Amino acid sequence: MAIVINLEEIKKIVADIDVVSAMEEGFVQYSNGNTVVPPVGELLFEEPKGDAHIKYGYIKNDDYYVIKIASGFYDNPKIGLPSSQGLMLLFDQKTGVPKGVLLDEGYLTDIRTAAAGALAAKYFAPKNIKAVGIIGTGIQAKLQLQYLQTHTPCTKVWLWGRNKENVAKFVKELGADFDINIAENPSEVAKNSNLIVTTTPSEIALLKAEDIQQGTHITAVGSDTEHKQELESELLKKASIVIADSIPQSKSRGEIYRAVKDGAITESSVIELGTAIQDPALQRLNDEQITVVDLTGVAVQDIMITKAVYTNYIKE
Amino acid sequence: MAIVINLEEIKKIVADIDVVSAMEEGFVQYSNGNTVVPPVGELLFEEPKGDAHIKYGYIKNDDYYVIKIASGFYDNPKIGLPSSQGLMLLFDQKTGVPKGVLLDEGYLTDIRTAAAGALAAKYFAPKNIKAVGIIGTGIQAKLQLQYLQTHTPCTKVWLWGRNKENVAKFVKELGADFDINIAENPSEVAKNSNLIVTTTPSEIALLKAEDIQQGTHITAVGSDTEHKQELESELLKKASIVIADSIPQSKSRGEIYRAVKDGAITESSVIELGTAIQDPALQRLNDEQITVVDLTGVAVQDIMITKAVYTNYIKE
Repeated sequence: MAIVINLEEIKKIVADIDVVSAMEEGFVQYSNGNTVVPPVGELLFEEPKGDAHIKYGYIKNDDYYVIKIASGFYDNPKIGLPSSQGLMLLFDQKTGVPKGVLLDEGYLTDIRTAAAGALAAKYFAPKNIKAVGIIGTGIQAKLQLQYLQTHTPCTKVWLWGRNKENVAKFVKELGADFDINIAENPSEVAKNSNLIVTTTPSEIALLKAEDIQQGTHITAVGSDTEHKQELESELLKKASIVIADSIPQSKSRGEIYRAVKDGAITESSVIELGTAIQDPALQRLNDEQITVVDLTGVAVQDIMITKAVYTNYIKE
Repeated sequence: MAIVINLEEIKKIVADIDVVSAMEEGFVQYSNGNTVVPPVGELLFEEPKGDAHIKYGYIKNDDYYVIKIASGFYDNPKIGLPSSQGLMLLFDQKTGVPKGVLLDEGYLTDIRTAAAGALAAKYFAPKNIKAVGIIGTGIQAKLQLQYLQTHTPCTKVWLWGRNKENVAKFVKELGADFDINIAENPSEVAKNSNLIVTTTPSEIALLKAEDIQQGTHITAVGSDTEHKQELESELLKKASIVIADSIPQSKSRGEIYRAVKDGAITESSVIELGTAIQDPALQRLNDEQITVVDLTGVAVQDIMITKAVYTNYIKE
């Protein structure tokens, strides 16, 4: 009989578990070819407009397989509902028996994405972080900042967001824990920070190559389609290290896709995150390098976080 | 918050609802082009051998969308578990909010398949049924016989199964409600029955054209792949009416696929179930015709039965 875990319980468990380490293990399994992840299923809706995506897969010789259903219905806020909805399902990999239904409403996707940002910082951020730069003011911007605390004690922040109200809201929510400076533009963030996370759905590059100082690490979280772009392609050219969470996905979406398309970098210069974190020679070598990690989101992250929540829940 | 309905509750509800009418409405919607059903998702497992299939879709302008997960792990019986496992998920089509998780363990798939058999009998069986013929002795054989009672009061049965133990078990379980005659071979079933249901995974034709009497209706349930075949291709040639639950699926699997491949019938002579049940001219016209309905299983059946169980559950 499958166990049903609701959002409140999920949040409690997530606060207690090491999601960053779960992501680390997942990316290694993925890059080592130990995951089975078929193409994403998709349902499109017309009235009202919406889409549902079904992602599924497993790590070979593991205990479980996982299915994630995530939808976006963009008129939901008009009736007081979040546009993102969804749940995670966990099954016994040896028998197919359903073991867990996690009614996470998209929460675990947000968390696993933020944890991947912290993982990127662990291997690529410079030793001394003078300030954390955050581009964007949404849920993911806040979570990225919070999860970075697993890596660095730095609480000095430079923040830029297009919408002034959302900037004020961000400061109100996180101002007690962080020393937040509001930037006039993305360039001002780049001038004052050496660990930057971009979290917007922008389709026009926000950070320019000329803005970035030597020794800066950038994690690009926002772009996960062929049209979105937060980093100027020249910026990736300027970087010593360019990392993709998934090499196959970087061929069709995200910052790397755009930079390759623009001729700024070549596909062969890109290294996969799960490969790089296994080999110190592929990680940051000094405090002068500019490094970029492009996160488009990989199904193994969903597998790992679902497993982590479920196994922690049944242990209690 | 999604409602979770367990198998015991599901069985109680199914006993109270009119699944055959739900199938009827579903097949009409399907044949009228009002359903959205993307390709099936698949996960394969090696150790132990298993597969999971993810079927999903919706009826346009309906209240819900549905995802079904069904797996087969063929070593499960060794550890006392059924090889079939699975669940159904129901979501609000306007917002994506999960509404129901039906932990049906494959039960609803069995029921919707049996109900489609009863629906086929409703439109294609001859008026006077002298005996019901059942080929096969598994769960589906029993359910088909039981669901046919929604259409005919005939309780005289001719049964054939390859495995004598399973034949005896069938008689033990259903002998109180039915007058069951055990046939030596499929041909003997055909000689004594004019409403026949085939439910085996056979890959060699069990019913021959020469066995079938005028006026007989046959519902073929067992074959849902390119290799399975219960009816000799010549039998479909001899039939006045050949019906597919899904014309697109009949091009790659089931009895019709085989008969077309063998040159016995042409694709253009096949009519879709949901089309035929809307037009009396496409249904049985007299008591002399031989009719064949080939069921391979259509996602709209899963959508309809999941909706029916859920809406009945929340009404209570």
